[in-house]
Amino acid sequence: MRIAIYGYGNLGRGVECAVKQNPDVELIGVFTRRAPETIKTLTGIPAFSANDVLNYKDQIDALIICGGSATDLPKMTPTLAESFNVVDSFDAHANIPAHFDKVDAAAQKSGHIALISAGWDPGMFSLNRLYASAILPNGKDYTFWGRGVSQGHSDAIRRVPGVADARQYTVPIESALEAVRSGACPELATRQKHLRECYVVAEKGADLNAIETAIKTMPNYFADYDTTVAFISQEELNKNHAELPHGGFVIRSGKTGLNNEHNHTIEYKLTLDSNPEFTSCALIAFARAIVRMHNRGVVGCKTVFDVAPADLSILSPEELRAHML
Amino acid sequence: MRIAIYGYGNLGRGVECAVKQNPDVELIGVFTRRAPETIKTLTGIPAFSANDVLNYKDQIDALIICGGSATDLPKMTPTLAESFNVVDSFDAHANIPAHFDKVDAAAQKSGHIALISAGWDPGMFSLNRLYASAILPNGKDYTFWGRGVSQGHSDAIRRVPGVADARQYTVPIESALEAVRSGACPELATRQKHLRECYVVAEKGADLNAIETAIKTMPNYFADYDTTVAFISQEELNKNHAELPHGGFVIRSGKTGLNNEHNHTIEYKLTLDSNPEFTSCALIAFARAIVRMHNRGVVGCKTVFDVAPADLSILSPEELRAHML
Repeated sequence: MRIAIYGYGNLGRGVECAVKQNPDVELIGVFTRRAPETIKTLTGIPAFSANDVLNYKDQIDALIICGGSATDLPKMTPTLAESFNVVDSFDAHANIPAHFDKVDAAAQKSGHIALISAGWDPGMFSLNRLYASAILPNGKDYTFWGRGVSQGHSDAIRRVPGVADARQYTVPIESALEAVRSGACPELATRQKHLRECYVVAEKGADLNAIETAIKTMPNYFADYDTTVAFISQEELNKNHAELPHGGFVIRSGKTGLNNEHNHTIEYKLTLDSNPEFTSCALIAFARAIVRMHNRGVVGCKTVFDVAPADLSILSPEELRAHML
Repeated sequence: MRIAIYGYGNLGRGVECAVKQNPDVELIGVFTRRAPETIKTLTGIPAFSANDVLNYKDQIDALIICGGSATDLPKMTPTLAESFNVVDSFDAHANIPAHFDKVDAAAQKSGHIALISAGWDPGMFSLNRLYASAILPNGKDYTFWGRGVSQGHSDAIRRVPGVADARQYTVPIESALEAVRSGACPELATRQKHLRECYVVAEKGADLNAIETAIKTMPNYFADYDTTVAFISQEELNKNHAELPHGGFVIRSGKTGLNNEHNHTIEYKLTLDSNPEFTSCALIAFARAIVRMHNRGVVGCKTVFDVAPADLSILSPEELRAHML
């Protein structure tokens, strides 16, 4: 299976590293909007200009699009699905139906297959919400995120006047997790589920109280949460907060029995040292699946919900049944 | 979707109760090898003789076979797949490939679809082993069972001379779970993963020391484990150990990054008040999926690995993408 990476940021580098762990995957190269001669790839694979991607049509079984969900993917994925089988990690949940429709139209027309929104949420968390709700229909599910870095919230802090740099951690509240695990199906307000922990580097002479107030009262991002703000030096931020860990929990509890006398709890937990590298690994597994599906004649836009799990594995169906079932 | 239950024990009763939670499922009745007039069903659905099942061929979209894996299912599933779409919970892991081949031959010949080994292990645990290993190929996975009742081990104790009744709990060892979660990928001996806790009712005048020794030294079942034996009265057993709770953990940890510098842990945990009722719920979800797949022309034997998750849900693909992705 020959793949290429389109977009060479954290996610693209993650795919590049993950290819080494997948012996059935060959990486043709990286396509970048920057000048390719300025790119030094981690593993020495070639970098090409994004403008030339169509020249490589016949050499690529699946193109892994590593762009941002805000502005890159809504354009890139439908356009590239006109010429390639593609996978993306589109994660703007509310816009998934519109993104799906645009990508599906392009892929149906060109006879390609596209898989959108692979990763962990959307992705593995979505799968766990679906499986758990299908098995325990009389129940309720909860998603918790963290402890991990929210890049969107970190960016929002950086836009506050007087802030030089910042890192925000989303932290699930242990008592809420315990209430959910107990099967009590609690109603939880936003503030009861997560804390927001902010590490802020202030510009010299900035008004720290004003910064703290601006963060804690910021609508949508922080106002509905209990938020802590700690001012630290740039050195400390660089030293202790350079990584991008994340993770979280999907928990569903539900009742069964003639009179709902039995409770069941399904919990899926991710603890990730590197959010982009885990997402990259998921992108490769789903790229494998869509190449196989396309070889069987499947076209159009798909999501993780449409992929039979066996298609994700390098193992044969016989090996899977013998060793993993 | 019209289903019927074949075999009316704990599992069959679980399916009967779970149908009420699935508004798209209609339960035609229960087929039993006992005299049907002696069966009083929990919800008043009719009981029919297993001998008459072929008369109902046109009224049943999927037959859920609720038999034991040792002797019932190896005969029942291939035979019934000659005339019905069928689902079973065959759980003798080592014999799955042979069972698959027999069921596949019957279903391919008759043009039906059969799904074997639905439930939680095999079933949801298998799916989690597959997903986790496909995403983190450079890693190792571990399955722990319990705390829960092992019916096979309880039966083995009951066969010891002087034992009137018994209940055995399989208990995962917390320190082993922690070592696995840490990403250390430990090598764990059988004794390091699980304890076996036995509650035994002795016959009057029996030699308790002899019973305890017979249990603790029993090959395959107990000799390789740290085992505790507590003698209790029949009343206490009936009062405190009448339920069939179970569950467990599938945990995989793996490394990513250019130099394997990042660790990731995926943990799936089930806490089940009723082992048979949870399995029943899974059987219904997979029955829904195979009816849909058969309507699209799919025939032959399948496992949970072959089912696209969307087929398990009562929700439409559009609803799933909008609300669950």
